[in-house]
Amino acid sequence: MHRVRFRDPAGSVRTGRWTDDGLAFGGETFDPDDVDVLPPCEPTKIVCVGLNYAKHAAESGMDIPDRPLLFLKPPNALAAHGDTVTLPAGKERVDYEAELAVVIGEQCRNVSEDEAMDYVAGFTCLNDISNRDDQDVEQNWIRGKAFDNSAPLGPVLATPDEVPDDASIELRVNGETKQDSSRADFIFSIPELVAEITEYMTLEPGDVISTGTPEGVGPLSGGDRVEIDIEGIGVLEHTVRED
Amino acid sequence: MHRVRFRDPAGSVRTGRWTDDGLAFGGETFDPDDVDVLPPCEPTKIVCVGLNYAKHAAESGMDIPDRPLLFLKPPNALAAHGDTVTLPAGKERVDYEAELAVVIGEQCRNVSEDEAMDYVAGFTCLNDISNRDDQDVEQNWIRGKAFDNSAPLGPVLATPDEVPDDASIELRVNGETKQDSSRADFIFSIPELVAEITEYMTLEPGDVISTGTPEGVGPLSGGDRVEIDIEGIGVLEHTVRED
Repeated sequence: MHRVRFRDPAGSVRTGRWTDDGLAFGGETFDPDDVDVLPPCEPTKIVCVGLNYAKHAAESGMDIPDRPLLFLKPPNALAAHGDTVTLPAGKERVDYEAELAVVIGEQCRNVSEDEAMDYVAGFTCLNDISNRDDQDVEQNWIRGKAFDNSAPLGPVLATPDEVPDDASIELRVNGETKQDSSRADFIFSIPELVAEITEYMTLEPGDVISTGTPEGVGPLSGGDRVEIDIEGIGVLEHTVRED
Repeated sequence: MHRVRFRDPAGSVRTGRWTDDGLAFGGETFDPDDVDVLPPCEPTKIVCVGLNYAKHAAESGMDIPDRPLLFLKPPNALAAHGDTVTLPAGKERVDYEAELAVVIGEQCRNVSEDEAMDYVAGFTCLNDISNRDDQDVEQNWIRGKAFDNSAPLGPVLATPDEVPDDASIELRVNGETKQDSSRADFIFSIPELVAEITEYMTLEPGDVISTGTPEGVGPLSGGDRVEIDIEGIGVLEHTVRED
């Protein structure tokens, strides 16, 4: 099942289904071009994982961590399918990072790996847009990773049964493939991430764990069109502009 | 004016006034001991500042930064006046850090220093509880600073006119003074912080900027009673327990 949140032409926010015929809610079906698609959930926080693919750690010149490297994106970081993200002004290098995002279904704390999937509502796509100018020089990645609209999320919440264990994760810029990997290449599994994070913090319904990006990260420029295509979820598409 | 949020004996959440007679709402006045005092605002994020007092930078062995060192606490970090905070399990050193917290009154972005105070609803007290075991070894201070209840906040929101520019900031553990400084000793002023943060992120009503801690930080143990006493606001009091 593919759940979608959208604002209908009358301005009402709906949670419906994205089907082959369009976006369905309450007996009506809308053309995706006639509505504003919204992020598929409303996180109180996005807990992100760095360096969760060995080849990306290598391209970043970093060692493989012995426990997940964590950082945060607050709600101001959200953007949606179809949006135009304004890159932070005056930066030399702002990169795309395709990620599989886990959406939490129920409040949880101190979850074991065995029970972790009980608290997962499903998966979506996230672009962890990263301002390297600041990320490279600050202790905590706030200017680097937590700026407005640095986390396009969507287009749908796909239930776990839709997304295979070896789902392909691909990112294209202006139609050209830049990242092409698989969920099978994670260093830390989703249950391991849920267990580690909930040892320290309560997760709320709609909170997101973003599972890190594979190799192939690279820069964005004004006018670029980004597509993140994850098997079983679909394609999150957004454009970028310079300030 | 001192605004307070509380849950009354019937279970309703109220925003009233903390007066000499008690907590007033809707023509009734409640004894503070008969209600649950809540954090005075509902932040979507707490943007914290590190090393904003020269003497604390020195005691931490850090240089004075040339721009504010920022980090985040998400909503799960909140705790309230009168609460008992459970320290993270199995850590050698968890510290108190008394801070003056700024509460945002209106959504804002790209705010100049001159207009910054227009967006400030008032001030409250925050304890930036810090798990040094993890903070000292992680890139982003997530396990170290963003764990559940790591940000007791309160007891009231004091409007800016109540809090002098050189307001004293004192922290006591079990009645003994451990930190004793003043808002006058900030490296970066509140308008400078608002301007810097809103260059990167939108602040929402109720969001909090915590302005850093002065010298004198030290460890907490189970059973400790912490009081943060800021001139013009009042005393935030909480206890701690070990897991």
